[in-house]
Amino acid sequence: MAANRRDFIKLSALTLGLSLIDYPLYGRTNNWIKTLNSEKSVMKLSFSPYNLLLKHVFTVASNSRTTTPVVLTQIEYQGLVGYGEASMPPYLGETQESVVKFLQKVDLSKFANPFELDEIMLYIEKIDKNNTAAKASVDIALHDLLGKILQQPLYKLWGLNPQKTPNTSFTIGIDTPEVVIEKVKETQNEFKILKVKLGKNSDKEMINAIRSVSDVPLCVDVNQGWSDKYQALDMINWLHEKNVVFVEQPMPKEKLDDMAWLTQHSPLPTIADESVQRITDIKNLYQVFSGINIKLMKCGGLREAYNMMNVAKALEMKVMIGCMTETSCAVTAAAQLSPMADWADLDGNLLIKNDRYNGLKIIEGKVTLPTLPGIGVKPQKQQS
Amino acid sequence: MAANRRDFIKLSALTLGLSLIDYPLYGRTNNWIKTLNSEKSVMKLSFSPYNLLLKHVFTVASNSRTTTPVVLTQIEYQGLVGYGEASMPPYLGETQESVVKFLQKVDLSKFANPFELDEIMLYIEKIDKNNTAAKASVDIALHDLLGKILQQPLYKLWGLNPQKTPNTSFTIGIDTPEVVIEKVKETQNEFKILKVKLGKNSDKEMINAIRSVSDVPLCVDVNQGWSDKYQALDMINWLHEKNVVFVEQPMPKEKLDDMAWLTQHSPLPTIADESVQRITDIKNLYQVFSGINIKLMKCGGLREAYNMMNVAKALEMKVMIGCMTETSCAVTAAAQLSPMADWADLDGNLLIKNDRYNGLKIIEGKVTLPTLPGIGVKPQKQQS
Repeated sequence: MAANRRDFIKLSALTLGLSLIDYPLYGRTNNWIKTLNSEKSVMKLSFSPYNLLLKHVFTVASNSRTTTPVVLTQIEYQGLVGYGEASMPPYLGETQESVVKFLQKVDLSKFANPFELDEIMLYIEKIDKNNTAAKASVDIALHDLLGKILQQPLYKLWGLNPQKTPNTSFTIGIDTPEVVIEKVKETQNEFKILKVKLGKNSDKEMINAIRSVSDVPLCVDVNQGWSDKYQALDMINWLHEKNVVFVEQPMPKEKLDDMAWLTQHSPLPTIADESVQRITDIKNLYQVFSGINIKLMKCGGLREAYNMMNVAKALEMKVMIGCMTETSCAVTAAAQLSPMADWADLDGNLLIKNDRYNGLKIIEGKVTLPTLPGIGVKPQKQQS
Repeated sequence: MAANRRDFIKLSALTLGLSLIDYPLYGRTNNWIKTLNSEKSVMKLSFSPYNLLLKHVFTVASNSRTTTPVVLTQIEYQGLVGYGEASMPPYLGETQESVVKFLQKVDLSKFANPFELDEIMLYIEKIDKNNTAAKASVDIALHDLLGKILQQPLYKLWGLNPQKTPNTSFTIGIDTPEVVIEKVKETQNEFKILKVKLGKNSDKEMINAIRSVSDVPLCVDVNQGWSDKYQALDMINWLHEKNVVFVEQPMPKEKLDDMAWLTQHSPLPTIADESVQRITDIKNLYQVFSGINIKLMKCGGLREAYNMMNVAKALEMKVMIGCMTETSCAVTAAAQLSPMADWADLDGNLLIKNDRYNGLKIIEGKVTLPTLPGIGVKPQKQQS
């Protein structure tokens, strides 16, 4: 455990009857906060805010950061514990405070067991139309419990072949050519595909730097960084010659007409990320993007993600499974779905130095699932 | 057991190394035919053709009949038996012979257990692009086994609420007004919604006959019987005044442009039946029909049916779960999905007098699921 510093913040006026809570923002935490009615409930939901410390400063088109806030969840049921996690995508406006506020409204005492998944998630959905990361943290813990009750990993309950997991990409942030070259050298033996963040003015410089030391296949994530469709197409045509596999979210999320034109003319598949959040968004992206990037924190959890994969396939769209910067808990949960994906970007846990769980492994670049029941994670032993 | 007559037919030149097989077409059968390599396999698939005897002659727009051919399947695994069934929709061209021929090609010896569902169904799919009823008979038996291994009914494994099952419609065939009135009187206390087969010249006569004795909600199945969109709209407008809930497959299945126009103008939801078979068909029906009728025998089983339901919902289309004339085996399997459906038409087992299983019950018109594991059926005791 790298971090054992404990910071406390006081949250006020955001809770139901609990006007002051102390909780640690960094490192080890033992004080799990219970939710409404958790004493009466057969399923006891508790949660604990936690801050992830990044190994490196991370830069994308819109910002740079050194930490990521998450909230860890647990649901206890008949001596079993299901683990979940909320990680906050900045562009969806969630914070530890909003997740805490959401989870404190969750009352599982009206439900008999985790098999009531559909009813529980309908109830969770009605609490607030946003807060998909908070919803995902409950959904993941419920799925983990279901797997533990049935003593099977989720991929088996879904009938999926664990050998069919894809290689995961590893993400290279925007940086100087020297730093980019260094990062590529460090990672190119470990990963079979790298993901490059573009969308600033240094796009060609970034790619040329990588290509000066490696011919590993690349995927490119523009994070809405290109505003003109003609320039975007020129850039994609150039990337096509550089062994790039696909281009993610090249244009602003609302520019669907320009995107449809770009996809129609692009020699590379285009993948929606910021343009797609939940299952009902997909129909608007048919023939607009070639595929979608599904993330548990965007869509509200494994149940919706599983269904989104099937919807995309039914529309003959490509499927990518992604993640946020998060612990092995949420990344391993997402990995359980990866046998259904064309591509995976499941490196979120590799970017942090204070993970709390052991879960998936990346072996020769390939997502490798644990055989443990449920989502397949074990909490790390905490150092005192 | 109503029928104990045993007829034998000889099938030749349709098997792999088994050039002559005797099997009973009616009533009780004890000779289950084993599939390729079933001795070596940990999962032992066997099957038995069986003919269903209808309680009444049944007339739809295209034909009349008194029997329906099915093939019953079983998969044995570690002392458990999973049950399945293929019932042949006439318009998809399957017969007992084609199902037998298909199943004799199935070699499960390469698979370790029923959890390899995805790989097994991909393998089954590759045997032949058609034969969805034969595929469904394997898929249903595998799902039944999975539920029995995990000791849970399928609805629980899918996280569905068994209280949310819809009322099932009961089907009134095309007949004289006197017979129709008699049938409606017999059934209207038992069912909360009736389905009327239209598409011959007697449509208004049929509806008026029913309305002379009952105001029960009706759904209307035209089985492609109306060829002109303007006449179809006139008829739907007339039906709208008669407490009709939706209109199923009003026009020929390939007339999608006319259907899109009709759906746009129709005051009642339009539901695709013959126009939709498998999951990849749905995208072509978006904004063409208001919803789809999903049947296990059309789509190849529970796995695809579950996914089709989610695809339809993601496209904001209505979902109906239907069946063929079949035993309680396949009908109860379909019923496990019914909590996800807007409407159910699960009366296939009620039309026959030689059912082989006990499964779902219809209680005050509502689909009522057994709590048994898997699909939830038990074989009936056979009379000697």
